[in-house]
Amino acid sequence: MKVSIIAVGTELLFGQTVNTNATYLSENLNHMGFDVMYHFVVGDNPQRLKEKLADAFSDTDIVLLTGGLGPTQDDLTKEMVAEYMGVEMYLDQRVVDDLRDFFRKRGGNMAENNFKQAYLPVGCTPLYNASGTAPGFALSRNGKTAICFPGPPRELKWLWEHGARQYLEQLTDKKMYYRIIRTIGIGESDLEMLLMPLIDGQSDPTIATYAKEGECTLRVASQRKDSDDARKACDEMMARIMELAGKYIYSTDDEDLNEVVVRMLKDKGVLISSAESCTGGGFASSITDIAGASSVLHSSYVTYSIDAKVKLGVPEDIISEYGVVSRETAVSMAEALKNVSGADLCISITGYAGPEADPGHDAGEAFIGYVYKNHKAAVRVLTNRNDRRWNRNYFILRMMRAVYMLLSDRADEIE
Amino acid sequence: MKVSIIAVGTELLFGQTVNTNATYLSENLNHMGFDVMYHFVVGDNPQRLKEKLADAFSDTDIVLLTGGLGPTQDDLTKEMVAEYMGVEMYLDQRVVDDLRDFFRKRGGNMAENNFKQAYLPVGCTPLYNASGTAPGFALSRNGKTAICFPGPPRELKWLWEHGARQYLEQLTDKKMYYRIIRTIGIGESDLEMLLMPLIDGQSDPTIATYAKEGECTLRVASQRKDSDDARKACDEMMARIMELAGKYIYSTDDEDLNEVVVRMLKDKGVLISSAESCTGGGFASSITDIAGASSVLHSSYVTYSIDAKVKLGVPEDIISEYGVVSRETAVSMAEALKNVSGADLCISITGYAGPEADPGHDAGEAFIGYVYKNHKAAVRVLTNRNDRRWNRNYFILRMMRAVYMLLSDRADEIE
Repeated sequence: MKVSIIAVGTELLFGQTVNTNATYLSENLNHMGFDVMYHFVVGDNPQRLKEKLADAFSDTDIVLLTGGLGPTQDDLTKEMVAEYMGVEMYLDQRVVDDLRDFFRKRGGNMAENNFKQAYLPVGCTPLYNASGTAPGFALSRNGKTAICFPGPPRELKWLWEHGARQYLEQLTDKKMYYRIIRTIGIGESDLEMLLMPLIDGQSDPTIATYAKEGECTLRVASQRKDSDDARKACDEMMARIMELAGKYIYSTDDEDLNEVVVRMLKDKGVLISSAESCTGGGFASSITDIAGASSVLHSSYVTYSIDAKVKLGVPEDIISEYGVVSRETAVSMAEALKNVSGADLCISITGYAGPEADPGHDAGEAFIGYVYKNHKAAVRVLTNRNDRRWNRNYFILRMMRAVYMLLSDRADEIE
Repeated sequence: MKVSIIAVGTELLFGQTVNTNATYLSENLNHMGFDVMYHFVVGDNPQRLKEKLADAFSDTDIVLLTGGLGPTQDDLTKEMVAEYMGVEMYLDQRVVDDLRDFFRKRGGNMAENNFKQAYLPVGCTPLYNASGTAPGFALSRNGKTAICFPGPPRELKWLWEHGARQYLEQLTDKKMYYRIIRTIGIGESDLEMLLMPLIDGQSDPTIATYAKEGECTLRVASQRKDSDDARKACDEMMARIMELAGKYIYSTDDEDLNEVVVRMLKDKGVLISSAESCTGGGFASSITDIAGASSVLHSSYVTYSIDAKVKLGVPEDIISEYGVVSRETAVSMAEALKNVSGADLCISITGYAGPEADPGHDAGEAFIGYVYKNHKAAVRVLTNRNDRRWNRNYFILRMMRAVYMLLSDRADEIE
């Protein structure tokens, strides 16, 4: 079944608020097997809302609306939906009681305009809101269904879990199952070429590729009458994808690479430490983004200057002979780090994030060094970009990838 | 002038990607004086894109499109726009050369489908993309203007700054001049109250407040026939704002706080270092995000475990007596850091980012310690949130704010 989402709120059109509600609803609707066809955003303007409501219903039978249910004059979503559906409004006594209760508990007087929130369209299924003051509702009439949610994401999520999802479940008979596969080390076009035998002539399951920063994501999705069938079809397709592109896949469950790496470090009981120059602490920060990182990272070093590298234990000779951005310095940083930190897996980076680089070098050049078990080496990374932020993020991803390969006993594939 | 934004991409309708591009473009369009009327999101489907393109152009003369410019089969935005505008496509030689160059530098072969990106609508103004492979373009015909951007936010921002904004500036005969003022240490409502004498009855320049994560931004904008007049009106208003709210303003030029801090460190010749626990290197990473940070940060430490703090030089007694998350440990970390790093300004943090916290503590509690000139102290931060990512970002902002205050000789205002 096809669904549109209309978000109502001038703050979205001003760029003050990101439309995360549409993302949340879309993800959940897709899980349930609904096809989300459109998102719309309109301001707090009754005429334009009315037009977009008609547009949305012309293509889809179900429209979810967010925002514009509050007590102020420009909150008009409910009224427009009732008008479109051709029903009157009624005063819902339970909402009145809930509102009185809410304000009494807070010890405040209820402003008169709050009663506006207690009016609902005749014939609707109210979605009483225990996480805020504005109720939502679901209303089906003549084969069309509208579900209205308040704008604050926390309240919207509460109403989704407490009534809206259940209301929608009654409306559908198809079940969707999908998996998100994360890859590294291959571009979108190459991945698509590699999987062409599977993508070509696809109907169900479908395979789609998405480029993300420095990596590529695959979605495998199946929609069947039976959820076990959908799952089975996806699993079979996943097995064929693994055969063709397995070496590039690091997660079949939409995990970020740092999540996967921290889990592997924990599982293997490996302690990690980093000595970072051009990434300036970004690698350690990415590891410690993950809850529970304290069991795998005890300390880390930002050795930004030559002096800091020497203090860590890199011989001055190495730096003067090979240069501060060199394979030899990177390896030596990892070795020195091993002595200082005592960690099992030591990783280092020295390079030029940009815009500046020393003579004979380009911004975007870096060496990643590592010491782990019997592996001790460094690899050169060259981005050919002079974009400091991009380079730093990409260097961190490449460090993470090197750690992933070391932990997977695939050191020979580090690049 | 009225604008619509159409984001193209099934990943948005699947809820995998948040439509931050629409937010970014909306904010910038509003700053320039354009009225954003609608956001639309459609999947990678030519028919539905065509329909929404027609819908958008029926209400607004300018439509910005994001996504669907890549090399794969489902990237169809360009083709649909050309069809709507009634123009053919041509092979742009510069894009072909850029693509060849890009792939040659990476030492890889270019997949054949990449050439798809080199086709552009006849008569368009190409927006050559130095931050990625897919070019954008602007195309005006019969009073209608379409501007197409690639989907990756970084590339979109690059093209906005390098061509798209300038193209839009030509379309409007009114000249908008605006300044973005960044503040810290004051909430949106308080700032609005403070500036009420200026905001009340405003016509031109206008003053608008926007709440951002942990801070508040002001926009002063004037729209006149003559750009010098607009500039002069803004400058006069700015002077009045400085009188009323100067102490909260850290940038009158839309700079991030880390940019301002690094510039101040450079100007004053102050060397900084950090010892980070719960932020895990995020503060050092934020400082080194700024080009030229090597002259102000030589080394930095992630002392995540108790052992790492002791190794830095924090007496074990302090930790056992006051606890690892305490004012005393934070100060001691900054003192130890001063000895180890020799930096002029030493800042430390110890706390709970969440979800876990030791008994008697809450996630979201941290102590920021500092040593600079004759200042040596720590402040407590309490977010009352159990959101690891949010807490870590907020802690880093508070550290940055403390450094800003120290460098501004306003240590007594650190909180």
